[in-house]
Amino acid sequence: MIHIPRLCVIGVGLIGGSLALALRRAGIVGEIVGCGRNQSNLRRAVELGVVDCYQTNPASAVTGADMIVLGVPLGNVRPVLTTIRDALDSATIITDVGSAKRCVIEDIEAVFGDIPARFVPGHPVAGTEKSGVEAAFADLFQKRRTILTPLAQTDPQAVSAVAALWEAVGAEVISMSADHHDRMLAATSHLPHLLAFGLVDTLARWGGDEDIFQYAAGGFRDFTRIASSDPVMWRDICIANRAALLEALEHYREDLGVLTELVRCLDGQALERVFRNAKAVRDRYLPLLER
Amino acid sequence: MIHIPRLCVIGVGLIGGSLALALRRAGIVGEIVGCGRNQSNLRRAVELGVVDCYQTNPASAVTGADMIVLGVPLGNVRPVLTTIRDALDSATIITDVGSAKRCVIEDIEAVFGDIPARFVPGHPVAGTEKSGVEAAFADLFQKRRTILTPLAQTDPQAVSAVAALWEAVGAEVISMSADHHDRMLAATSHLPHLLAFGLVDTLARWGGDEDIFQYAAGGFRDFTRIASSDPVMWRDICIANRAALLEALEHYREDLGVLTELVRCLDGQALERVFRNAKAVRDRYLPLLER
Repeated sequence: MIHIPRLCVIGVGLIGGSLALALRRAGIVGEIVGCGRNQSNLRRAVELGVVDCYQTNPASAVTGADMIVLGVPLGNVRPVLTTIRDALDSATIITDVGSAKRCVIEDIEAVFGDIPARFVPGHPVAGTEKSGVEAAFADLFQKRRTILTPLAQTDPQAVSAVAALWEAVGAEVISMSADHHDRMLAATSHLPHLLAFGLVDTLARWGGDEDIFQYAAGGFRDFTRIASSDPVMWRDICIANRAALLEALEHYREDLGVLTELVRCLDGQALERVFRNAKAVRDRYLPLLER
Repeated sequence: MIHIPRLCVIGVGLIGGSLALALRRAGIVGEIVGCGRNQSNLRRAVELGVVDCYQTNPASAVTGADMIVLGVPLGNVRPVLTTIRDALDSATIITDVGSAKRCVIEDIEAVFGDIPARFVPGHPVAGTEKSGVEAAFADLFQKRRTILTPLAQTDPQAVSAVAALWEAVGAEVISMSADHHDRMLAATSHLPHLLAFGLVDTLARWGGDEDIFQYAAGGFRDFTRIASSDPVMWRDICIANRAALLEALEHYREDLGVLTELVRCLDGQALERVFRNAKAVRDRYLPLLER
């Protein structure tokens, strides 16, 4: 059983906050130090019992920590790493929760000159459209997957410790390469978010004087739920994972062009084939999606 | 208070079945006669208490009915109308629940030569991704909207009767032109369904040997829920409302092209602006969407 005497969470939002709550409930952490730029969010985190105390200076926050979790938007990873670099104890394990992994590895290399053996890139595939510590809850990672993307030089013991951390909060841990991770997540998460944001934006501008949304039903509400996600976080993800996202977008736009032609040519048979395939596939994976 | 001694529901699926259940609960119908092509579905409808009896021949089913509700997929409207035309009593009110209205009006004109004054085209903007009478429930229309698209020659008393029917099951009734309906629904319902079906189909073929869906999280499940909808019904809707759908698709594909360029050029500022706008609009309309 893992025990972390002192954990530092930099970025106490939905993910960092939920992890802190879940680890505390699991009884495997001593003290949890929060860190971030928004002091009122940090005060709220203390009030909610998510962290024991907070520091606004990352270099002070990491001092004496046994493990550090970076829960900041991808665009803030490099500045935060730069700030904490010289304050790090060589024994401290660092992990992150970023939704893209190649870019985090590049940030680490840029800041440290190489990848420290104690840095374990990670991504809990969980979340809601809400953000901030108020939205945090201890069950967020239950039955979800956390993907670790260790490198050849990553210390196996550090990987085990980070895996144990996620398993303690109910996640199933799997490992893969950063590039594979980035391609899979571009397809199943980053592309859908971009499509949903894009649709709501298109309709808002298209409706003109009329509130087009008043005609929307439950399907639209669910389809666009992810368009209520944090714009800054998703801006960062789209930029950070642009190569894989552009590849997914290219596939999708090509297929959408084909679908458009099927509608234009009234090819009901081919349309039905696509719809049937989509329904069959989704229904087949529903148990996985509803884990 | 409206009272319908004998109601005939042709197509006892999610919508037709739910309407029957809700009307029965409201206590405003005498006998409900179901009709359809799938006899086991009709037997189940009787077992579930959705209809009192059934007929597989539409011409027999409509005999003596005070009101007829067409709950069949859009592609079946014209054949059903052809079958019942000569069996109709001139006093019988007819309405339908089709998700596109211009095409229904064309079907009526094609079959009757003109639009009978007693025909009130309608569309309850409600549904789930499930289909068939097993999925029917009496609360489906509570706080939802039903849009009626009467024509100049439509009998105002018939419109009032159909409006009263929907109000009795908890819906808010509004009227507009068929063309306006078709444009609004293409944008907020038909386009999202096509996009969701398309995404799941793309990913299923893209994943290759690997089950790409195993990396999907809750956002993907919600985004693609509508891809579990009935393929035949949605094939018919896409074909029937192709003009408005193609217009919406054109807008969306153009905007998606712009978004793709923003990612390619790393224009985070512009991306964030789109995402912020989408989130603000969606959050503002959430009370409407969650009615």
